[in-house]
Amino acid sequence: MNYSIIRYIIGWVLVLEAIFMLLPCLVSLIYQEKSGVAFIVTAVICAVIGILMTAKKPQNKNYYAREGFVIVALSWIVMSLFGALPFVISGEIPSYVDALFEIVSGFTTTGASILSDVEALSHACLFWRSFSHWIGGMGVFVFLLIVLPLTGGSNMHLMRAESPGPSVGKLVPKVRETAKILYMIYIAMTLIEMVILVLGGMSIFEAVTLSFGTAGTGGFGVKNTSIADYSVFCQAVITIFMILFGVNFNFYYYLLGKNKKNAFKIDEVKWYFIIILASIVLITFNIRGFYDSIWAAFHHAAFQVGSVITTTGYATADFNLWPQMSKTILVLIMFVGACAGSTGGGIKVSRILIMFKTIGQEIKILVHPRSVHTMKMDDKVVDKNVVRGVGAFLMTYFVIYCVSLLVVTLDGKDLVTNFTAIAATLNNIGPGLAEVGPTGNFSGFSVLSKCVFIFDMLAGRLELYPVLLLMTPSVWRKN
Amino acid sequence: MNYSIIRYIIGWVLVLEAIFMLLPCLVSLIYQEKSGVAFIVTAVICAVIGILMTAKKPQNKNYYAREGFVIVALSWIVMSLFGALPFVISGEIPSYVDALFEIVSGFTTTGASILSDVEALSHACLFWRSFSHWIGGMGVFVFLLIVLPLTGGSNMHLMRAESPGPSVGKLVPKVRETAKILYMIYIAMTLIEMVILVLGGMSIFEAVTLSFGTAGTGGFGVKNTSIADYSVFCQAVITIFMILFGVNFNFYYYLLGKNKKNAFKIDEVKWYFIIILASIVLITFNIRGFYDSIWAAFHHAAFQVGSVITTTGYATADFNLWPQMSKTILVLIMFVGACAGSTGGGIKVSRILIMFKTIGQEIKILVHPRSVHTMKMDDKVVDKNVVRGVGAFLMTYFVIYCVSLLVVTLDGKDLVTNFTAIAATLNNIGPGLAEVGPTGNFSGFSVLSKCVFIFDMLAGRLELYPVLLLMTPSVWRKN
Repeated sequence: MNYSIIRYIIGWVLVLEAIFMLLPCLVSLIYQEKSGVAFIVTAVICAVIGILMTAKKPQNKNYYAREGFVIVALSWIVMSLFGALPFVISGEIPSYVDALFEIVSGFTTTGASILSDVEALSHACLFWRSFSHWIGGMGVFVFLLIVLPLTGGSNMHLMRAESPGPSVGKLVPKVRETAKILYMIYIAMTLIEMVILVLGGMSIFEAVTLSFGTAGTGGFGVKNTSIADYSVFCQAVITIFMILFGVNFNFYYYLLGKNKKNAFKIDEVKWYFIIILASIVLITFNIRGFYDSIWAAFHHAAFQVGSVITTTGYATADFNLWPQMSKTILVLIMFVGACAGSTGGGIKVSRILIMFKTIGQEIKILVHPRSVHTMKMDDKVVDKNVVRGVGAFLMTYFVIYCVSLLVVTLDGKDLVTNFTAIAATLNNIGPGLAEVGPTGNFSGFSVLSKCVFIFDMLAGRLELYPVLLLMTPSVWRKN
Repeated sequence: MNYSIIRYIIGWVLVLEAIFMLLPCLVSLIYQEKSGVAFIVTAVICAVIGILMTAKKPQNKNYYAREGFVIVALSWIVMSLFGALPFVISGEIPSYVDALFEIVSGFTTTGASILSDVEALSHACLFWRSFSHWIGGMGVFVFLLIVLPLTGGSNMHLMRAESPGPSVGKLVPKVRETAKILYMIYIAMTLIEMVILVLGGMSIFEAVTLSFGTAGTGGFGVKNTSIADYSVFCQAVITIFMILFGVNFNFYYYLLGKNKKNAFKIDEVKWYFIIILASIVLITFNIRGFYDSIWAAFHHAAFQVGSVITTTGYATADFNLWPQMSKTILVLIMFVGACAGSTGGGIKVSRILIMFKTIGQEIKILVHPRSVHTMKMDDKVVDKNVVRGVGAFLMTYFVIYCVSLLVVTLDGKDLVTNFTAIAATLNNIGPGLAEVGPTGNFSGFSVLSKCVFIFDMLAGRLELYPVLLLMTPSVWRKN
């Protein structure tokens, strides 16, 4: 284990966080709010610690997969521990555990909140909440790899540990170039959404924060009614952008490049849209009696489906009141999640695809035990290790789910609340059903349960293994 | 596809069913009930069709894995279709779908019922319900292999398709001898339970039917209150026998043989008892306020845990009223299920073990990507195909679960009812929570939902693939 490189890189993450915090400071200046002081204090703390940690360069700059996992998991934890401070210092969220829950929910793009009155927060704090979605959405290391040209050919380990999906590839041979391309697409799409929302009549502050929340598929809003009070036009724009940010970013890269045909060969993207369309149609049909027109039903169905499958978590309607079938469809797509290589969470469409292909293959093996069976996706043979990895991922997911459920159940809440609260945090969605539905929040849980949710949000965002490796003793052994 | 061997063996299954039906006829004679006529009529129908189907021996007696799966799945369906007739003919369950639900629930050892008043049934019908548990528990083919010496070395395919567990082995080189040993143990244990229950003061009819239900880990009782009205002694006896019938039968075989040590080397059995013990302790602690003494709490905790993990489904207490934590533990062990090679259902402890070992292995692979990793169970290396099979099984299980949930949700019932109703049928348990809790039943569901449950019970009992293969077009192609 190369401890000095871990210290060094986490130091840089803290410096980066200090710089990020200057933005909410700016916001507090514009709105003349006292809470800016909390951000300056925290930024200084982060900067000092970060500079101390990066002062001594590590002699050995080589690191491997396990250091990659540990660095990423620890960085996210450290980033959250310090990111929670402004809420506490400003007094806007006095409990540190609550503040930590809120910022982990932000960075992991979950969007679950312990606040019952969001509008009571200052603009600076609201901005920081939404901005944390944007940082967490694409990933802090994708950014770090651009600004900090780390030497050594092992940077792929960082990106692999942070990026979602069963198999992370590089778009171009160099990791740094790949990171740059991803962030360019990310920034461009966010800006386009902001402009359209402002043109649609939204205030600049709202357009900026809600676009951050959409881009990161986070879900923190700035109003207590989430997105329900905005115009139909703005809601429709957010619907479209939520769905677009849930698409595998390779799709956009191919679309902008020379081989535009490749974009439409991605099976995952195809099925992502098929699932969305099917869910919208079924739910529209199921809830048509709840709304004045079929168009209104379609509008709300599309928004909620887009919000849930991309694991954003915005709401225009209290789907907790919808009929059972619609609720069940929403719960199921909570687990499906968005595409790999997007900013969305969940199990990911590609894993679900591999799951179905595995079932098909198993049936073929049973019928013709002696034939050779290969699995294909995007016209390419799927590596056996990827298939094994998907199986192990689903099993790990299932175990974390059950253990979380068992602990949370100590609070004595009903099964639907507990079940969907874990679905909502482990899949980085935000709202669940019953007590944690779109109009509820997570404040009613005990400190222990909140810690479980914090763990689940981090585990979900980092795709389980980085945080599990942190807890594996053999990982910490010296070489 | 060897169609004539399929016809031939299913014919024998029908003949066997005709013989089985003579037992309820006998019961109706003893109790002087009219319903015996229904059984005689059905027995004659089964016998005639069966004899016609077996009249012409198949020229080609060779068959392979896929014929094995198809034969087993079709036999179970045919057996159920005819087994439901006595209920309808006698008028005791007028609706054919309800009667089919009831007998599928019997054969698959589920124990879920559409009856609200069990005590209204005649003794003959009650006996047939409970006897179907006993037949289904060990499996009809295990029996057929003993009485009908099928030629050809491919009989293992039948046993493999019907027996539960990730890898079915033979106890002794000959399949027929293995089947004989299993049935000897099965019959002996059932008889011992009957005798003890009678000594405990139960009537012979009750002792016989309840022992059938325990042995098959079925769950049909003969009273509306399930097991709640019997003496504490009888409840304790049933608790112990439920848990014993959930043990891998290899354990008993080893225990009776020369190498008694082998019995205690089976990891699955070890963990089966650990899970049971842990669940009982946690639930006893959690429900202690509900009962007069800690001993009473322990008694009810042990009964319900034994009933649920072995997927029997008897009840001495309405666990639907217990605190959330106890309910959640029961829901979780509903999925765990009993040991492979027992009469119990569920995912099976051995699959759960392989699941945990897979997670551990995945973490090791991530930490040391270049090392060679093998998985061990019972001190032996687990075959890679078994691991792959377990992964595929869990995925298939998950997909069937979700599709079932989606269809059942059309009835508009609450999520907990739907979720646990599918858990209770797919795992062959019987009762779930809420509307299908220990005091409820399945009569409130639509015909479509009942068909889904019938499918789930069969799929669960036959471990998914046989019934899925039936629906795979390529299976039916001629060679």
